[in-house]
Amino acid sequence: TIFPISLALASSWDMEAIGRSGRIAAQEAAADSLDITFAPMVDISRDPRWGRTSEGFGEDTYLVSRIAEVMVKAFQGVSPANADSIMASVKHFALYGAVEGGRDYNVVDMSPVKMYQDYLPPYHAAIKAGSGGVMVALNSINGVPATANTWLMNDLLRKDWGFKGLAVSDHGAIFELIKHGAGIDMSMNDSLYGKELPGLLKSGDIEQSDIDNAVREVLGAKYDMGLFKDPYLRIGKAEDDPADTYAESRLHRADARDIARRSLVLLKNQNNTLPLKKSATIALVGPLAKAPIDIMGSWAAAGKPEQSVTLLDGLNAVIGEKGKIIYARGANITNDKAVVDYLNFLNFDAPEVVDDTRPAQVMIDEAVKAAKDADVVVAAVGESRGMSHESSSRTDLNIPQSQRDLIKALKATGKPLVLVLMNGRPLSILEETQQADAILETWFAGTEGGNAIADVLFGDYNPSGKLPITFPRSVGQIPTYYNHLTIGRPFTPGKPGNYTSQYFDDTTGPLFPFGYGLSYTTFGLSDMALSST
Amino acid sequence: TIFPISLALASSWDMEAIGRSGRIAAQEAAADSLDITFAPMVDISRDPRWGRTSEGFGEDTYLVSRIAEVMVKAFQGVSPANADSIMASVKHFALYGAVEGGRDYNVVDMSPVKMYQDYLPPYHAAIKAGSGGVMVALNSINGVPATANTWLMNDLLRKDWGFKGLAVSDHGAIFELIKHGAGIDMSMNDSLYGKELPGLLKSGDIEQSDIDNAVREVLGAKYDMGLFKDPYLRIGKAEDDPADTYAESRLHRADARDIARRSLVLLKNQNNTLPLKKSATIALVGPLAKAPIDIMGSWAAAGKPEQSVTLLDGLNAVIGEKGKIIYARGANITNDKAVVDYLNFLNFDAPEVVDDTRPAQVMIDEAVKAAKDADVVVAAVGESRGMSHESSSRTDLNIPQSQRDLIKALKATGKPLVLVLMNGRPLSILEETQQADAILETWFAGTEGGNAIADVLFGDYNPSGKLPITFPRSVGQIPTYYNHLTIGRPFTPGKPGNYTSQYFDDTTGPLFPFGYGLSYTTFGLSDMALSST
Repeated sequence: TIFPISLALASSWDMEAIGRSGRIAAQEAAADSLDITFAPMVDISRDPRWGRTSEGFGEDTYLVSRIAEVMVKAFQGVSPANADSIMASVKHFALYGAVEGGRDYNVVDMSPVKMYQDYLPPYHAAIKAGSGGVMVALNSINGVPATANTWLMNDLLRKDWGFKGLAVSDHGAIFELIKHGAGIDMSMNDSLYGKELPGLLKSGDIEQSDIDNAVREVLGAKYDMGLFKDPYLRIGKAEDDPADTYAESRLHRADARDIARRSLVLLKNQNNTLPLKKSATIALVGPLAKAPIDIMGSWAAAGKPEQSVTLLDGLNAVIGEKGKIIYARGANITNDKAVVDYLNFLNFDAPEVVDDTRPAQVMIDEAVKAAKDADVVVAAVGESRGMSHESSSRTDLNIPQSQRDLIKALKATGKPLVLVLMNGRPLSILEETQQADAILETWFAGTEGGNAIADVLFGDYNPSGKLPITFPRSVGQIPTYYNHLTIGRPFTPGKPGNYTSQYFDDTTGPLFPFGYGLSYTTFGLSDMALSST
Repeated sequence: TIFPISLALASSWDMEAIGRSGRIAAQEAAADSLDITFAPMVDISRDPRWGRTSEGFGEDTYLVSRIAEVMVKAFQGVSPANADSIMASVKHFALYGAVEGGRDYNVVDMSPVKMYQDYLPPYHAAIKAGSGGVMVALNSINGVPATANTWLMNDLLRKDWGFKGLAVSDHGAIFELIKHGAGIDMSMNDSLYGKELPGLLKSGDIEQSDIDNAVREVLGAKYDMGLFKDPYLRIGKAEDDPADTYAESRLHRADARDIARRSLVLLKNQNNTLPLKKSATIALVGPLAKAPIDIMGSWAAAGKPEQSVTLLDGLNAVIGEKGKIIYARGANITNDKAVVDYLNFLNFDAPEVVDDTRPAQVMIDEAVKAAKDADVVVAAVGESRGMSHESSSRTDLNIPQSQRDLIKALKATGKPLVLVLMNGRPLSILEETQQADAILETWFAGTEGGNAIADVLFGDYNPSGKLPITFPRSVGQIPTYYNHLTIGRPFTPGKPGNYTSQYFDDTTGPLFPFGYGLSYTTFGLSDMALSST
């Protein structure tokens, strides 16, 4: 089962639901004989250019710390030695979300006070919750690579925090260092330890006790996972294996749907455009309306697109005989061939991005015709999943131009326009916010995404998600996190901007702040009286 | 005399010329009875959104440190007690150029190692050169306002660096603090010291010795400036005063022209479009072609627009009878009325920005007609001076749309197109770089700017300036300084971008790197032989 991406889970602010997704993931992974997971990812991220924003839980130290704790306990269950538990390894230690310019793998520079106040607490929370592992970040911190950072790995992690588990490098990180660093027990996916350690031992650059300590932690982690008692603990007996590893019966669809709909954030709902009537004729358009790969989000691992419920599937399941769906693709994700080639090269389903080969205008015309024949337009737009992925940093937070052209043409029809956003980072959707009558942020909502979104669009579920990260008006405004320190010359909305802290060429302040999210409920206050005067 | 802005001076890389500008400025200021200047401004700036980028010397620690030293010595001359010297006060102490998001007055967060390696050396260089004063920055550093920062003002400045001079707050900074900070001797432009100090002394919050120490530094500075010997040292005798304070005879035009032309940076020169023939018919267009206020740059203080040589003036002076200038404004600085209102409110010449009230298309049509009647088009485009000013941070580094429309129309004529840029920060001019045949970066070149630019355009001076700051391709790429630390997964041009540090939606790397700049010289290597094999 693929649950919503981490940023979506955080949008639920629902610790029970988040923990449930972790517990089910652990059960499914353990049943497939996995002993350890490289999760949770608890990097505070305040620069939406960074593609891995999608993998984290947003900008807020407290919220992310709470989720870190919940996720570790969910993965490891009552004990990591249990057959239905897997070991957590919190990542990326540390500060990876603060890479300069939001450019992946870049340097991090930060004052100690900001580290301790804002960025380190989520890792610490995971460790206090018992995370058996720590995965080390690929970035450097104030000039020293995390992977070789004695302060980070020994002084902070082991001495100050008392961590006794397994520290594992990120993929290839050891190879990328000239010499390996202090405090890393296990190297991910390269053979340098085997090749180099005997020589280094001989030359005296390392001591036997360094190797002994690392090996002890690796064996200790295996012990904690119950592998000394039963090395085949999570493989089980052959006769218990399902005939089909991907059998429908192995999925947890009800939970996936329930958790997904808690993660959807209603950003706009002018004139109660939502919920939609089930008897309506709906034009469903956009490159993400029928996108079984994208709805899974990045790093979906063993997720199967064939098992995804797309938005089209979800709407169809509700509409039945009562209403009508007119589907038209309307646009490709992007008309930039270099980007499509990059995404197809980078990702795991081949082809990752499938283009409709018709001319852009033909596709738009078809969508406009569908809109004109309908009562309301639902446009599923945003990013392909690979655009919010490791190594997929962007300089621009707009919805790609191909889709913006589509939205403009749909707006011109005068029909009520509902945007269903799919994306893995805050986007700069100022123009779209003006064009659309309603906007539902759905992130990448997982296997049951289409059903969950339909639940909200038709009012079977009252949207309750709140943004775990600020949406800027444009990329030039970042960073835009909510809990800024006070300054001497703050900008005050409505007052002249002279000699205050502002940008003079745009409205100062975010498009949608941290914590923003609407519901279908209206609130009224009545019969108010003062208890005393 | 108004010399080129600091960022332009840095582009000359010419310490003799830079020092000369400072010496003349000191002589002129002293003759007007000024004792002290709030300069040099040596904040390292790597975020061109920041409006005060124009006031500094760029991104490089070494270059800015060298200039800091040269400027202090130039202002103070042989002794700050001399009648033709003024006291320097290096600013803004410290790290002001690193304000978060390039938003003025914002917080600064930085590791100590980056402070000491990159941001602090220029201030230290100024102090080692004998700067009598230090002006304190408006930003906070790692959570503590500089103005109240005991570590910064006492431990670093006075104890570690041995500074014995006068520390002055920035405008209103004390008022903006709840309580005044340690180590500030003098408060700029507010009356809080007089109002609050007696009470604080009485309550024991401060001691008499605190006040004594501060007063001693103020008096010490006055002593150093020679004011105890002769308080009217820089006022001189009444009979020596010129009848007209702004008399032409008081200007240093030859030096201003010489220094300005050393600061111009040739960014492109396809097909040897430059130098121009003096017999040519030149269409001179753009809102900055006849802009006597803008060419002075921000904080031009006593500078008089009437004394500025505009680009039109400069070209006319060369062309004489031989060739011909057809002038057309072509566009206003911007069509955004809110921005014009802001700039007119913010600055010092009223009105600061004067709009041509004709419709945009009428102005473009006039410019296009001029272009068609000419051999070559020279378009003076960029920013008004107030756009690169204190409190004028931008989210967008483009040339404003009104001017981009003009450039597009000019390009369509097919005539050779020379862009003369005026601006106070790196701009994202990717499109313009493709459209133009030649580009000359002139910053804001001062009183003699028009003549200096004409010298280069016509080949009477061979351009020699080099960029002291990187030009990004777009605002989404920043920061883009040149001396990045090495990382584990660097992007390598020409190789696939997968899992390397890059932005997938644009070419990785700057538009013009630090140090870039062309000349009219062509270089050839010939008769090469190996001295040994």
